[in-house]
Amino acid sequence: MCQLLGMNSNNPSDIRFSFAGLMQRGGNTDTHADGWGIAFYEGKACRLFLEPIASAQSKMAEFIRAYPIKSQIIISHIRRATQGSVCLENTHPFSRELWGRQWTFAHNGHLKNFRSLALASDRYTPIGSTDSEYAFCWLLESILQAFAAPPDNITDLWQFIYQRCCDISQLGPFNILLSDSKYLYAFASTRLSSITRRAPFGQAHLKDCDMAIDFKQTNHENDVITVVATEPLTGDENWEKFADCELKILQHGIVVGSYLA
Amino acid sequence: MCQLLGMNSNNPSDIRFSFAGLMQRGGNTDTHADGWGIAFYEGKACRLFLEPIASAQSKMAEFIRAYPIKSQIIISHIRRATQGSVCLENTHPFSRELWGRQWTFAHNGHLKNFRSLALASDRYTPIGSTDSEYAFCWLLESILQAFAAPPDNITDLWQFIYQRCCDISQLGPFNILLSDSKYLYAFASTRLSSITRRAPFGQAHLKDCDMAIDFKQTNHENDVITVVATEPLTGDENWEKFADCELKILQHGIVVGSYLA
Repeated sequence: MCQLLGMNSNNPSDIRFSFAGLMQRGGNTDTHADGWGIAFYEGKACRLFLEPIASAQSKMAEFIRAYPIKSQIIISHIRRATQGSVCLENTHPFSRELWGRQWTFAHNGHLKNFRSLALASDRYTPIGSTDSEYAFCWLLESILQAFAAPPDNITDLWQFIYQRCCDISQLGPFNILLSDSKYLYAFASTRLSSITRRAPFGQAHLKDCDMAIDFKQTNHENDVITVVATEPLTGDENWEKFADCELKILQHGIVVGSYLA
Repeated sequence: MCQLLGMNSNNPSDIRFSFAGLMQRGGNTDTHADGWGIAFYEGKACRLFLEPIASAQSKMAEFIRAYPIKSQIIISHIRRATQGSVCLENTHPFSRELWGRQWTFAHNGHLKNFRSLALASDRYTPIGSTDSEYAFCWLLESILQAFAAPPDNITDLWQFIYQRCCDISQLGPFNILLSDSKYLYAFASTRLSSITRRAPFGQAHLKDCDMAIDFKQTNHENDVITVVATEPLTGDENWEKFADCELKILQHGIVVGSYLA
């Protein structure tokens, strides 16, 4: 299994505080030591950093933790390999182009018999051997088959993605973060939590290392930032747990769509 | 215009020495200050670092210069924007999946009327607005239309890529580095040089900064490494200039295929 971290905000923000906590779970406070990755969106593309080693021991992860890359959509993942060897091809987030935008995907969970999701074409072919990348390819192919272009009514797309996520979660735990560069999609079949931070900002302490932050010092008055994670990263804030099989769609720091059976 | 740097080797090697020279041309010894990027292959995928700022002023480029990422195929690029604004979407190398492998592409040159290369489908859609990414999409679509899967006779693919590169170069200077994770393709319509280093290794001095290396100290006896660049990076070695419209295909550090009109 793995752990996820996502961020969506109305103004470009950095994720150094949250990432500092997550990277400790990659081989230090937890066992997700088989790779890590992080995607920072800028416009329709993203910068993607991947490394098939433990984040807690990575000089690159340490550099990213200290380098203030600002973005409105960030997706990060630390891996404990369950399907597929430990190598770059199997390191999340995965990325593909659809509709002239870069889509990015990371998964926590374990899908049995995942090839029962039939890939009808070679439009999206897995590069590695994980259940996760396979499911991502299937999801994108399904979207493209249903929508040759982004639908006029965006909620048609949201509803479609929700249904496909429910389909996939029949095969096993499917907690994911997905982005098309405009929205952050967070689907939990079993386990995700989120918190939205806005004025009046308070303080928070990371659970995984001795680090605290005063968000009043780091944010502007009008900033709205939502963080999504497999497990809450701070111990002194009220994280909200997703319901089972709930999809939340985030834009500009807030939930703009939500689907639940 | 831009500058290219590529490396291919029989054993995983790092490119810190050459990259140290190239990054100086991104805003210091030369004017290619509109972005930089570098791709390091591992297996069928690559790690891609991109930043739409001057490499000579980038802390990330400085980190990469000092971080020994070893790879057998590396493609790097520094950009001076001629078509398309300065942003992440327009930063080389570009990357797409084909046949379950990650392909990567960087371009030096300037193509006029590049949309005369008709994209027959949306299989590869540009994310940014450069002539370069457009030509890459057209090239991959052309390959896929001709070969649904990698051909049994790989030289059929090489010949095809050579012909398409010649086609594109009708529109303007088209000096490129391309990789499918197995081979490094270097095509020069006007300007590329290369050097192959092998035992007995000597010393070399970078032209762009006060830095020298003794390859005897950094390489094993059996290492064979070819470096390709827009302009020679060292002043005391014999770089070989490509002929106009020459394609060289490299694997394991040596030229395994070569095409010339």
